[in-house]
Amino acid sequence: MAAALSLAERGLGRVWPNPSVGCVIVRDGQVVGRGATAPGGRPHGETEALRMAGDLARGATAYVSLEPCNHHGKTPPCTEALLAAGIARAVIACEDPDPRVMGGGIRRLREGGVQVDVGLLKAEAEALNEGFFLRLREKRPLVTLKLATSLDGRIATRSGESKWITGETARAWGHAIRTRHDAVMVGSGTALADDPELTVRLPGLEGRKPVRVVVDSRLRLPLTSRLVRTADRAPTWVVTQKGGTDATRARAFTECGVELLEVPAGPQGEMPIAAVLEALAARGLTRVMVEGGARLAASLVRAGLVDRVEWFRAGLLLGGDGLPATMPFGLTALADAPRFERVSVRQAGEDVLESYRRSG
Amino acid sequence: MAAALSLAERGLGRVWPNPSVGCVIVRDGQVVGRGATAPGGRPHGETEALRMAGDLARGATAYVSLEPCNHHGKTPPCTEALLAAGIARAVIACEDPDPRVMGGGIRRLREGGVQVDVGLLKAEAEALNEGFFLRLREKRPLVTLKLATSLDGRIATRSGESKWITGETARAWGHAIRTRHDAVMVGSGTALADDPELTVRLPGLEGRKPVRVVVDSRLRLPLTSRLVRTADRAPTWVVTQKGGTDATRARAFTECGVELLEVPAGPQGEMPIAAVLEALAARGLTRVMVEGGARLAASLVRAGLVDRVEWFRAGLLLGGDGLPATMPFGLTALADAPRFERVSVRQAGEDVLESYRRSG
Ligand SMILES: NC(=O)c1ccc[n+]([C@@H]2O[C@H](COP(=O)([O-])OP(=O)(O)OC[C@H]3O[C@@H](n4cnc5c(N)ncnc54)[C@H](OP(=O)(O)O)[C@@H]3O)[C@@H](O)[C@H]2O)c1
Ligand SMILES: NC(=O)c1ccc[n+]([C@@H]2O[C@H](COP(=O)([O-])OP(=O)(O)OC[C@H]3O[C@@H](n4cnc5c(N)ncnc54)[C@H](OP(=O)(O)O)[C@@H]3O)[C@@H](O)[C@H]2O)c1
Repeated sequence: MAAALSLAERGLGRVWPNPSVGCVIVRDGQVVGRGATAPGGRPHGETEALRMAGDLARGATAYVSLEPCNHHGKTPPCTEALLAAGIARAVIACEDPDPRVMGGGIRRLREGGVQVDVGLLKAEAEALNEGFFLRLREKRPLVTLKLATSLDGRIATRSGESKWITGETARAWGHAIRTRHDAVMVGSGTALADDPELTVRLPGLEGRKPVRVVVDSRLRLPLTSRLVRTADRAPTWVVTQKGGTDATRARAFTECGVELLEVPAGPQGEMPIAAVLEALAARGLTRVMVEGGARLAASLVRAGLVDRVEWFRAGLLLGGDGLPATMPFGLTALADAPRFERVSVRQAGEDVLESYRRSG
Repeated sequence: MAAALSLAERGLGRVWPNPSVGCVIVRDGQVVGRGATAPGGRPHGETEALRMAGDLARGATAYVSLEPCNHHGKTPPCTEALLAAGIARAVIACEDPDPRVMGGGIRRLREGGVQVDVGLLKAEAEALNEGFFLRLREKRPLVTLKLATSLDGRIATRSGESKWITGETARAWGHAIRTRHDAVMVGSGTALADDPELTVRLPGLEGRKPVRVVVDSRLRLPLTSRLVRTADRAPTWVVTQKGGTDATRARAFTECGVELLEVPAGPQGEMPIAAVLEALAARGLTRVMVEGGARLAASLVRAGLVDRVEWFRAGLLLGGDGLPATMPFGLTALADAPRFERVSVRQAGEDVLESYRRSG
C-alpha cells in the first residue's frame, strides 16, 4: 500500500479534478502490475495496473489507495475492470466520498466475490487526497500557504526589497512545491508589485503547468504583465468581482487567453475569500498553493482556510519595520490565535523549510 | 579533551569574571584526575584534577581546555602546580588572551621540561570561553538574545498578551539557558510591563543566581517591583544614566540591595548600548542573556552586538498587528540585514528551539 500511495503522490498537481490513485497488483508475493492516475485524470491507476499485469491479475491481490470507481464516466468503472480481470482480493486504503461512489465500489467488488479489506494506511491516503476530499465536502480546494521570510517573519525590507530573502535551494524547492499543486495563487498586490511569472522553472519539469490564479476584483492587472502576456502558454485565471469591471477590459483579458472567474462582492465590497475558493473548486481545483501577499494571506488565515503552511526561513533579521508576512488579524487573545502543527523542519541550502498542518 | 571541555561547560554562568576551565589527567590510558573551575572561579580546574590524581600525576598527561595561568593571583599559578606534580605532557586546547598569561603559561611549562601541545579542539574551546575572550578583547560580554515568538515573529498580541506563547517545556529550557549565563538582562519597558523575576526556577537549580540586570536610565523601575523586592536574595543591578536620576531615589534602590551602574548619556539622551555592555564587562560579566524587550533587542542587533540567538518558536500566527520581536531597524537594503548562522533546531515540547550564531 505504501507503494500504491507513493505512485499516487506523483499525480498530485496534474490529475485535478480527479483524485490521484495508485494501484499495485501482487501475486504470490510478486508485484505484477503498477499504475497511477495519469496526468489529466485518465486512465485510472487500476486500469493501468491491470493492463500491466495482464493474465497474471487472475487470483491476485490489488492494493488501491482509494476506493475504485463504480460509475460510468468517461471511462468504464474500475470495479468492473477488476472483476473482469479476476482479482481475488482488494485492499483499499480509504473510501471515496464522491457521492457517485461512497462505498458503492466496495459493495460491487464484494458482490462480485472479491475479498475486500478497507483501512490500510487510511490516514496517509486521506492526507494525500485531502484536496479532492475538501472539494467534495466543503466545496473548496486544499490551501497551502507558502512563505519566505526572515527569522522575525518579514517578507521584505521596509522599502519593499524582497529579492532574495531565501537562497537558491529554497527557491528551487518552492518551484517543486508548485508542481504538487493544481494552481498557484497570488493577490493583485503581489501581481502588481512583483510582476511574477508563477511558472515551474526546474530542469525537466518545465512541462508542469499549474494554473496561475490572481485575485483581482477590479482587473488592475496590466495587460502587459508577464502573467497576461504568457497566458497563451500556461493556464491563467483571474478571479474578479461580478459587475466590478467593464466589459471591454474583460474582453481584452479573455482575448489574451486569460480565463475570468466572477465572484459576487461581499458586504465590504471585497470578494469574500471563501467565495473565491468556492469558485476555484467549482472549476475543478483540488490543491491551491498561495504565494502571497500579506493581505491575501491574512484573509485566508483569518477565515481559517489555510490547511498547510510551507515556511522558508532565512537566517537574517529585518526588524520591526520590515514588511510583515501577513496583514493585521485584529487578534487580542492568545487563545484565539490560529494554531499549526509542525510536520517537519528540513534544511534547504542555507535556509530551512518548516512544514505545518492546521491543528485541531 | 572533549571530556575537559564538557567539564568546563558546566562552569558557564558561575565562574565569572574567570574563564571556565576543564582539566583531565590521564596516565597509561586511564583517567586519574578530573577538575573544572569551581563556582566563583576558584579553585581552578587544574588544581582540582591534580588533587584528585595525587601521586599518579607524576609522568601523566594533562588535558586542559585553556592555557594554565602563570601569575600569582588569589591562587598560586597552575603552571607551578603542574610542574610540582611532575606532569610530563600538557595538551592545551587554546591560549589564554589574558595579558597576564598570553603564552606565558605555555612557556613556563616548556621551560620546566613539560612537553606541550596546543590546539586540540581549539575552535570548541574558544567558543566555550567566547564571553571571557570578548570581555578581554572588546571590553564587553558575550550577548545571547533569547526570544519566544509565534511563527510570524511576534512576541505578543496587539493588546500585549504574551503569556504564554510557548509551552512549558520551552519555558523550562529558557530557565536552563539562564543558568549558563552570568546575567539575565531586560529593558525597563519589559521590567515595567511584565514585572518579571528573572530567576532560575528549575528543580535542583534554584541555587543558580545569575545577576539580574535592568537597563533603566531614569530609574523608572518601581521599588515595589519583584526585582527590587527580591534584591536581597539574588544579585540585582540597574544600569542607569549618569546624572539621570536624583540621589534620593538612587539611595532607595541601593538600600533595597540593588547595585546601580552609571553610564554617561549619548548624544540622543539614551545610554548607548555599547556603553551599557562596557559597564557590565567592567563589573566582570562575561556572558549576558537578553530577554527583551523589542527596543533593547533592536538596539543590540542594530549595533551588531548580538553574538548568539536562542529562538523559541510556537506553532501559531499572531498577524501583522502582533507586537514585533524587535523595534524598527531602519533597514532598506537586504544586503545590510544582520545575518545569523543556524547552529541547531531542536524540538522543545510542542515548540522549537532554533540556535544561531552571528555569521561572518
Ligand atoms: N517574500 C515573500 O514571500 C513575498 C511573497 C509575495 C508577496 N510579497 C510582497 O508582498 C507585497 C504585496 O502584498 P499585498 O498585501 O499588498 O497584496 P496581496 O495580498 O498580494 O493582494 C491583495 C489584494 O488582492 C485583492 N483581493 C481581492 N479579494 C481579496 C480577499 N478576499 N482578500 C485579500 N485580498 C483580496 C485586493 O485587491 P483588489 O481590490 O484589486 O482586488 C487586495 O488589495 C509585495 O510587496 C510583494 O513583494 C512577498
Ligand atoms: N514574548 C517575549 O519573548 C517577550 C520578552 C520580553 C518582553 N516582551 C514584551 O515586550 C514589551 C516591552 O518591550 P519594549 O520594547 O517596550 O521595552 P524594552 O526593550 O524592554 O525596554 C526599552 C527601554 O529600555 C531603556 N533603555 C535604556 N537604554 C537603552 C538602549 N540603549 N537601548 C534600548 N533601550 C534602552 C529605555 O527606557 P528608559 O528611557 O526608561 O531607560 C527603553 O525605552 C512588553 O510588552 C513585554 O511583554 C515579550
